[in-house]
Amino acid sequence: MYEQVARALRHAILHGHLSPGERMPATRTLAQMLGVSRNTIATAYEILRADQLTVAYERSGTRVAEMASVPAEMKRDAVTPPQSRYAARLRELRPSGLGRHRENLPYDLHYGDPPHNPALVRSWSRRLLAAARIAGPFYPDAKGFPPLRRALVEYLARRRGITCSESDVLIVGGTQQAIALSLRTLVDEGDTVAIEEPHYQHLKQAITAHGARSVGIPTDQSGIVTSELRRHRARLICVTPSHQFPSGAVLTLERRLELLDIAASDGSWILEDDYDSEFQYRGRPLAALRSLDLSARVVYVGTFSKTLFPSLRLGFIVTPPGLREDFIKAKRLDDLGSPAAEQAALATFIRSRQFEKNLRRTVLDLNQRRRILIDGLLRHGRGRLQINDTGAGVHIVVWLTTLSYPQLERLIELALSRGLGLYPIHPHYHSLPPRPGLLLGYAGVPAEALTRATEIFGECLDAVQSARGR
Amino acid sequence: MYEQVARALRHAILHGHLSPGERMPATRTLAQMLGVSRNTIATAYEILRADQLTVAYERSGTRVAEMASVPAEMKRDAVTPPQSRYAARLRELRPSGLGRHRENLPYDLHYGDPPHNPALVRSWSRRLLAAARIAGPFYPDAKGFPPLRRALVEYLARRRGITCSESDVLIVGGTQQAIALSLRTLVDEGDTVAIEEPHYQHLKQAITAHGARSVGIPTDQSGIVTSELRRHRARLICVTPSHQFPSGAVLTLERRLELLDIAASDGSWILEDDYDSEFQYRGRPLAALRSLDLSARVVYVGTFSKTLFPSLRLGFIVTPPGLREDFIKAKRLDDLGSPAAEQAALATFIRSRQFEKNLRRTVLDLNQRRRILIDGLLRHGRGRLQINDTGAGVHIVVWLTTLSYPQLERLIELALSRGLGLYPIHPHYHSLPPRPGLLLGYAGVPAEALTRATEIFGECLDAVQSARGR
Repeated sequence: MYEQVARALRHAILHGHLSPGERMPATRTLAQMLGVSRNTIATAYEILRADQLTVAYERSGTRVAEMASVPAEMKRDAVTPPQSRYAARLRELRPSGLGRHRENLPYDLHYGDPPHNPALVRSWSRRLLAAARIAGPFYPDAKGFPPLRRALVEYLARRRGITCSESDVLIVGGTQQAIALSLRTLVDEGDTVAIEEPHYQHLKQAITAHGARSVGIPTDQSGIVTSELRRHRARLICVTPSHQFPSGAVLTLERRLELLDIAASDGSWILEDDYDSEFQYRGRPLAALRSLDLSARVVYVGTFSKTLFPSLRLGFIVTPPGLREDFIKAKRLDDLGSPAAEQAALATFIRSRQFEKNLRRTVLDLNQRRRILIDGLLRHGRGRLQINDTGAGVHIVVWLTTLSYPQLERLIELALSRGLGLYPIHPHYHSLPPRPGLLLGYAGVPAEALTRATEIFGECLDAVQSARGR
Repeated sequence: MYEQVARALRHAILHGHLSPGERMPATRTLAQMLGVSRNTIATAYEILRADQLTVAYERSGTRVAEMASVPAEMKRDAVTPPQSRYAARLRELRPSGLGRHRENLPYDLHYGDPPHNPALVRSWSRRLLAAARIAGPFYPDAKGFPPLRRALVEYLARRRGITCSESDVLIVGGTQQAIALSLRTLVDEGDTVAIEEPHYQHLKQAITAHGARSVGIPTDQSGIVTSELRRHRARLICVTPSHQFPSGAVLTLERRLELLDIAASDGSWILEDDYDSEFQYRGRPLAALRSLDLSARVVYVGTFSKTLFPSLRLGFIVTPPGLREDFIKAKRLDDLGSPAAEQAALATFIRSRQFEKNLRRTVLDLNQRRRILIDGLLRHGRGRLQINDTGAGVHIVVWLTTLSYPQLERLIELALSRGLGLYPIHPHYHSLPPRPGLLLGYAGVPAEALTRATEIFGECLDAVQSARGR
């Protein structure tokens, strides 16, 4: 209460409603006027004195301090100062059009939700308890917690055929920070950055906000069409070779080598976003670009948002040796380093091989969910859809071959009203694909619920299509 | 082992040491050559086949795939592609010259170490355990965890007289990210940013890396000399009004109002870095600039690095309404949001008032340490030093009135050899102060150890000075 009174009086003084030198009302009077205790007023007056806004005189009570009026300039409706070009570009960004995860939706096929696994959340919490003590309270290493970086070096050699040293690994706040640091250290305003079409929207937005020009390179069932790349001399080429996001295509070895060749001849850097290569249901992933790269121009980016939880906000970069120091400095100037406790927890999790054990279980589990989802959709879709099943990742793309875009909207609305979250794929395209499609994530929905989800899907599709008939 | 073999073969193929179409050595031969089991070789061959680098024929065994040679461009010593101007500026940054926290040093007066408080680390870990479950696994809100933002609104009203709404509060990865986001949204390359002299070094480095020009404005015992500010029309003015870093001066109310006036007339933004206002040993802190700001141009920044631990990497911004959306977007494009578990733990910690309870205890404790340190230094310094004691913060500045800079270096070295970490203040100055000085943090050293630390200090000072006599 006294804070409120002090605030009101402070504003009255600053706005000149109480003039410099003027005597403040007696505490008793003000207390009666405001219907509060005299103590409250006395405390408020003490705050104003501590703030030097008033002066207490022995004889004449408390008066407004002599210089405590608002400067003339502040009273005018001061013009808002200019901002940066970056801010101007931020304002130009279109709303993403991506749906958000919805709580309390029984069947939410939202991409980006982590694998539904309450046991893992519990065991992770316990691990975090121990890790917070290991990590200690001090400023973390800007490069990342050394045991975590060491654990990643071994993990990457084991799982991805990537040879690197601890000093090549930089811990960052997820893929998004890896993108931001790459743009800052590699790309200037006005430069060209090649991205895949369709694309990851926050990548494109980051490029636009950075002031660079993003060029969408088409993709087909073999990934990015490398021949199209030759027409642009991009400073940076951003690709998702293991599992093109969101189409799901896997970049062939031939194109991987061609991509490296183009980068070498055009003087481009490559950002390899390996966001979900851990989820392969038909064998091991193809060799990472980074493991094929002899000219040290691939910036390899991994994340724990799919293998653990997005709420961790942890990912990592394997930098080419020439960029190592620049990336560390850019990270340091961005936030001094990532929080320590999660890094320590992750280090023990990976070193103890619990991480891979959990991953193997998750892959089996997700493969089962994927089968249920695909089978159910095909059954209840009855020929009205086409599914790109590339046997990888945590999402599928479903093309609705008989629907128009207005019908897609009605389908999504109707499904939502029945507890089923569906998400369109077109926000990931620069221009609308000829047919509407859905990007469906199945990690967050337990297997039991998926069967029912596909039934509801079929019923909603029927309803939307029969409405057209009428 | 098979990964190592696969890697060696992969490189042999990519480098053309094994030619396209060439038959791979028989597994038995290679196993004998390398002294490994045939199984190891067979597994390595499987990996190469999965990578599409080799092809297995029924009759003629495994051969190198036809296109699996390194493109001509990659074999040339490809020129490293250009990088950004940002990277070029990063390379120009001088090393900070700041000492780092040293483990196993019994008396480390390193500024930035958190209050030595093992009980708090334990209770925090337990809180984190519960919080990780509350926070959930999903992508966090880019603005920050809503209950934490609400808790901060109440806390800021209670403790700092700041009136703001939940939507004005943005959770960030410490003060450094607040600086980075402010520069990005407010300042262009080539713009002028006014900073205090002496200054916080990572602020100056961030400005330089951003491509802006930092102008050092002198400070005296009343804080930044506002009259000097009028000579520059800075786009952004960065100040530490509660406790100038590192000199310790408190900005007077008169200058606070003048600063706001200058910002209004010059069209400048103000970044108010309120990094340690919670540590006041002689009463309450002066009203924050933000609480006096009627023209909505103060970006207020708070941190939990001093009140809790730097390893948390959590801080917050109170944005003026006009900048709110830009800052949120800039944060989203930087890292999508801060990790969730720490935010949830902090929210319950603040709401339960445990945060303030702990803070009150810490303030009592630190005040005692401060007295021990100052008294001990004065006793053992015997007139050879001068201490700026402003009764606030977690560090003091000690000017060594009888030492030269080479003697300062010897003092620091000698002290280190005796287990005492001392840190010079001159790296925080643009040009060397006329007398050497020390920036001493006392939060990380328990009270018992501080008495002994000052004795060692006195002995080292004697030794360095008598060496001059000889």
